[in-house]
Amino acid sequence: MFALSNEWTVQDTLFDAARLHHAETVFTLGNGYFGTRGAFEEYYPGEMRSTFLHGVFDDVPVSFTELANAPDWMDLEILLAKERFGLDSGVVLEYSRSLDLKTATLRRVVRWQSPLGRVTRLEFERFASLADEHLAGVRLTVTPENYDGEVEIQAGVNADADNLGLKHWQALSQSTIRQGAWLHCQTRATQVGLAGGFHLKVKAPGRTRYARWNVRGHPTLAGITPVNRGQPITAVKWFAYFTSRDQKDPLKALRRKLTYLPRLDWESAHSAHCLAWQAEWDRSDVVIEGDPEAQLALRFNLFQLLSAAPRHNERVNIGAKTLSGYGYRGHSFWDTEIFMLPFFTYTRPEIARNLLSYRYHNLAGARFKALGNKYCGAQYPWESAATGEEVTPTWVPHYADRSKLIRIWTGDIEIHISADVSYAIWQYWQATGDDAFLIGRGAEVILETARFWACRAEWVAELDRYEISDVIGPDENHEHVNNNVYTNGMARWNLQTAFAIIAWLEQEHPQHWLRLRRSLHLKPAELKAWQHVSDHLYLAYDPQTRLVEQFEGYFQRKDIDLPALEPRQESVQSLLGIEGANQVQVIKQPDVLMWMYLQPNLYDKETLRTNYDYYTARTDHVYGSSLGPSIQAIMAAWVGKPADAYEHFMRAARADLFDVRGNAGDGIHGASAGGLWQAIVFGFGGLKHSETGWQTSPCLPAHWKRLAFKIMDQGNLRSFEITQ
Amino acid sequence: MFALSNEWTVQDTLFDAARLHHAETVFTLGNGYFGTRGAFEEYYPGEMRSTFLHGVFDDVPVSFTELANAPDWMDLEILLAKERFGLDSGVVLEYSRSLDLKTATLRRVVRWQSPLGRVTRLEFERFASLADEHLAGVRLTVTPENYDGEVEIQAGVNADADNLGLKHWQALSQSTIRQGAWLHCQTRATQVGLAGGFHLKVKAPGRTRYARWNVRGHPTLAGITPVNRGQPITAVKWFAYFTSRDQKDPLKALRRKLTYLPRLDWESAHSAHCLAWQAEWDRSDVVIEGDPEAQLALRFNLFQLLSAAPRHNERVNIGAKTLSGYGYRGHSFWDTEIFMLPFFTYTRPEIARNLLSYRYHNLAGARFKALGNKYCGAQYPWESAATGEEVTPTWVPHYADRSKLIRIWTGDIEIHISADVSYAIWQYWQATGDDAFLIGRGAEVILETARFWACRAEWVAELDRYEISDVIGPDENHEHVNNNVYTNGMARWNLQTAFAIIAWLEQEHPQHWLRLRRSLHLKPAELKAWQHVSDHLYLAYDPQTRLVEQFEGYFQRKDIDLPALEPRQESVQSLLGIEGANQVQVIKQPDVLMWMYLQPNLYDKETLRTNYDYYTARTDHVYGSSLGPSIQAIMAAWVGKPADAYEHFMRAARADLFDVRGNAGDGIHGASAGGLWQAIVFGFGGLKHSETGWQTSPCLPAHWKRLAFKIMDQGNLRSFEITQ
Repeated sequence: MFALSNEWTVQDTLFDAARLHHAETVFTLGNGYFGTRGAFEEYYPGEMRSTFLHGVFDDVPVSFTELANAPDWMDLEILLAKERFGLDSGVVLEYSRSLDLKTATLRRVVRWQSPLGRVTRLEFERFASLADEHLAGVRLTVTPENYDGEVEIQAGVNADADNLGLKHWQALSQSTIRQGAWLHCQTRATQVGLAGGFHLKVKAPGRTRYARWNVRGHPTLAGITPVNRGQPITAVKWFAYFTSRDQKDPLKALRRKLTYLPRLDWESAHSAHCLAWQAEWDRSDVVIEGDPEAQLALRFNLFQLLSAAPRHNERVNIGAKTLSGYGYRGHSFWDTEIFMLPFFTYTRPEIARNLLSYRYHNLAGARFKALGNKYCGAQYPWESAATGEEVTPTWVPHYADRSKLIRIWTGDIEIHISADVSYAIWQYWQATGDDAFLIGRGAEVILETARFWACRAEWVAELDRYEISDVIGPDENHEHVNNNVYTNGMARWNLQTAFAIIAWLEQEHPQHWLRLRRSLHLKPAELKAWQHVSDHLYLAYDPQTRLVEQFEGYFQRKDIDLPALEPRQESVQSLLGIEGANQVQVIKQPDVLMWMYLQPNLYDKETLRTNYDYYTARTDHVYGSSLGPSIQAIMAAWVGKPADAYEHFMRAARADLFDVRGNAGDGIHGASAGGLWQAIVFGFGGLKHSETGWQTSPCLPAHWKRLAFKIMDQGNLRSFEITQ
Repeated sequence: MFALSNEWTVQDTLFDAARLHHAETVFTLGNGYFGTRGAFEEYYPGEMRSTFLHGVFDDVPVSFTELANAPDWMDLEILLAKERFGLDSGVVLEYSRSLDLKTATLRRVVRWQSPLGRVTRLEFERFASLADEHLAGVRLTVTPENYDGEVEIQAGVNADADNLGLKHWQALSQSTIRQGAWLHCQTRATQVGLAGGFHLKVKAPGRTRYARWNVRGHPTLAGITPVNRGQPITAVKWFAYFTSRDQKDPLKALRRKLTYLPRLDWESAHSAHCLAWQAEWDRSDVVIEGDPEAQLALRFNLFQLLSAAPRHNERVNIGAKTLSGYGYRGHSFWDTEIFMLPFFTYTRPEIARNLLSYRYHNLAGARFKALGNKYCGAQYPWESAATGEEVTPTWVPHYADRSKLIRIWTGDIEIHISADVSYAIWQYWQATGDDAFLIGRGAEVILETARFWACRAEWVAELDRYEISDVIGPDENHEHVNNNVYTNGMARWNLQTAFAIIAWLEQEHPQHWLRLRRSLHLKPAELKAWQHVSDHLYLAYDPQTRLVEQFEGYFQRKDIDLPALEPRQESVQSLLGIEGANQVQVIKQPDVLMWMYLQPNLYDKETLRTNYDYYTARTDHVYGSSLGPSIQAIMAAWVGKPADAYEHFMRAARADLFDVRGNAGDGIHGASAGGLWQAIVFGFGGLKHSETGWQTSPCLPAHWKRLAFKIMDQGNLRSFEITQ
């Protein structure tokens, strides 16, 4: 698929229309303000061109809300001696695309023979500036090889951007300007304003004429210049975005910017961008010696996380598919807190703080959800978007029979996310010592989710315990289960952590505790009730077998012979159906093991190993959840199986580059990317914090010569080097 | 609302943005190939601009399929000395729109003062040619009143047409040409090809420059010409459509046409169009003397039916909202056969034949539906579109709670439509004597629907009769009812008519009967079974009270005091809720009376009167179904209540012109329009056919001086004149 030209470059040397969407995902660029799939500058039939801006959601049927595909910045039409350039016509003589991860720059070189036989070399470079998040640039160099003539470059900004057929934008105003054009539009339902505009400069030996085409919804500037064979000409299109989420008057901000764009030169603006990326890599890079594929794949995954991370906005989160595709419509899940956040918490805590602040700012949505279910406290939505209300689709059309619907239960009963959010806050606080954040924001989330759990747990008098029935755990093959260990365990952890935080606040910041206690109307009686739940919440464990039963009755489900199903190209759930999968033991992703990963001090080595062996044999590693392999890799390392760990690790590492699951076209698997970093640091590196400080207990794959990574610890950058 | 300037013209003299969508519906133009809402040439914010072409459906979530809003032909942007003309800016000094029903020509005159104070008179004329169904034209006359300057007219064809936010078109190719442009696109899922293109000619004293802007998806031609105060300039835009439903290569057909458009002159092309409309009115006009409002409203309704009627296509039907709005997404219902068809059958049988042929060609869809329900024969879909498969949405989102859904049952159990289709075929045959149609197409439909009914009816041994349980009748306030009289009655009629047709075929065309019998595998035993059903199908009637119970148990539903609910602005169903309305006797539209209307010889006068009094008091006339009033008017005339008949008649006549139901913006109420003609002819005119020929037994409103109409009878045009 994609070649390794070096350990920093993802390269593609063959244009293959059959994997157009996969390549678009892989060549996504972003700067944390917007993300743009790697579609071509010029149009290609069937493309899924998209640019998503964080937080710019609009209404959609069934899934309630989705990131609105914005008018795109790369829009260029190129006419070579009046023949329209496009890979779907003529002959592609040479083709290569390379994404330089170090500088976040995408380059395409094409030699193309037109239907009439003209041969042209075209080079495209583009970047989404990390130095100036409103800015994007594309540079085009055209060299006619066997003809003289005229090159026409049409640059536009097009309001006709859609989400797979759904239009979100209505144009408000537009204009062409001296060497550019702008457009002001807003989303139909949510009325988020977006202003986008560009400046185009053609550098050529001959005189360039510019024609201004102020066509409704798609103002366009055409630069027309004479060319001679062998002589290159260059065009630079600078584009800027502003939205009403970050500007009072986005059009005003844009017009100010547009007066500045003509003075921008490619080299300086690109250098500033490269420097900003260098600063990111200085913090976040991981070096693997002895395994170029793992090295490149890991960097690619970290690159995608860094590209999607909001740097100046604490009211947005990263969606399950980052900003790189239509999958899950930009909604955020626990994928952020449990899978992606540790990477940011330990390398870029400023970003982690933004992402966690999003949850704090959306406490109202979580309280609203709890209220709707007649619980108290805060119940975080399974899928979250602009407002923090629950946006999981309730019903989706049946894939085979269009008159039927499938009920999606995750929004109702996959409730562990409320504890996951608190877990990430706690982890962030532990790593950073950011007391201000905990006091001002984090504590309230942890207390309110604890309150939810105390309310949610059901007292079973005859067993003298609390239970939590009718849930879905991380393993979504099993719906409507009782006493899922992950859920019960995390709920108990959330309650215990609330007490720890209260104790700390009482001790260290009594006035803040007083304020919080009052504002949340926390009375001693209620805290006592929480304590009762925390002390009596049921958590399965069989001391005889050391097995932790994933949920009540799991052991009674049918234990099918997984290897006997091979070879297969689909998940066990799709093989057996939703109901069928519910009846057997096969799990979609680690659930008990996930719980043990998050609570490493709770179980002894022997228990870990026993449960590892038991559940690993029953997990759908290849076609189950993409969240599974990285965690599985960590647990394999923890039980001392480096070869197994490596296999799981590479499965996650290849998910998008090699499209292992066949759905890479929908966007980057963000959780898998985040899990990879955890697998490196906590799995292979075996990094652990104890009273004596940080320690590693490595378990490297045999062929890895050296592993090096850094973490931020209480504001200090610490480097770790591991060799065999 | 709309003024009566004369009995042929609907006029609007005040621009009111609040009823923009209503006016768009009222000013719809069409020629049976396409229909275009009366949006303005230039863009207006919040408009619902649409052009629908018959049969050009594409996939849509929830409702399965919808007519795709096509790239529109009127698209003009007008720059007056560089100021963009638009009613949302500057000052509208004068405004009038008039729709001339006689010539199907829409004219708008605006005097407009620009934000900078320039005053301009603009006159727009447009028509959708009835002489050449691929052709549409718009003429613009611009007169600057207080300035000299430059007028720029931008004419385009825009692929960015959407259905309320849903995009159906993907552009395939496009070009600007000498004085025009074209675009070839196709629907995303159904891949219907559409080619649209135009020619623009500006006539002005000065020299006109034309600029060609070949912007992707919206090729545009700009004509720029100098103007002097007081001197008018004129621009004509001719537009042509072709689709892959009527052309093997629509682009080729368009390009041929585009070479011809420059030679077209406005007067000649418009004259041909007017002549074609004159021929329609010669057949179809109805004259009411003494009531200008009723006269104009009736013509308006007939105009809308004629505008939507396919003249050269027997594979399409008219949707419930004609081609004039998004309501019901272009789907066809029994509205066509029972409400609209009599008008065509008796005045334009060629059109009726096309519409009935649509049902014949879609027998496969009806057989597929029967098969899916394990019935034999043909079960017509409640909602029908391109293929004749059932396209009623099964679930729609709840209006108040977005996580809930409402189950729509009509597609499952409102089954009377299969008999309605047969009824229309029989009526057409009776009126036209078109034996060839009956033999070649109609008979098969009637036999296959009879077969369905024989299969559908349930034998109840203990009562020695057949019943039909779990249906919805025409009155949709009551769902899941048993032995609805309309349904049972029409089913029996369908079976009886099948026998009549078989007898006629055996007698007159034995070889055709043999062919049909063989192709349908009809055995004597099966026909005997049909006879048994027909003879024993239960039909309620109480000889004591003369009352016909609408369905079993209707008399036991709660009889609420309807007048006590006044004043109200909503239907009884929306007041009481779906379940609440189900529990009371209030009906949404005549059901028993509808049945008696369609079977005028079955019940005596006294029975008619008794049931009229009983059900009229229990009908939600104002806010129930828009299908009700016209039928109610007929029945009132039949029981000798001309004043009541007139009240119901005018309620139907005003439905769209006065937006009585508040939903005229969704499109024309086609069934109401068709029902009006029936109310005139069969209600007020009392036209009846007996063995001695056609007879009228009029019942005119007191103020009507004269009523005149014509019908086609066995190929002969017969005129009727009624005076007081």
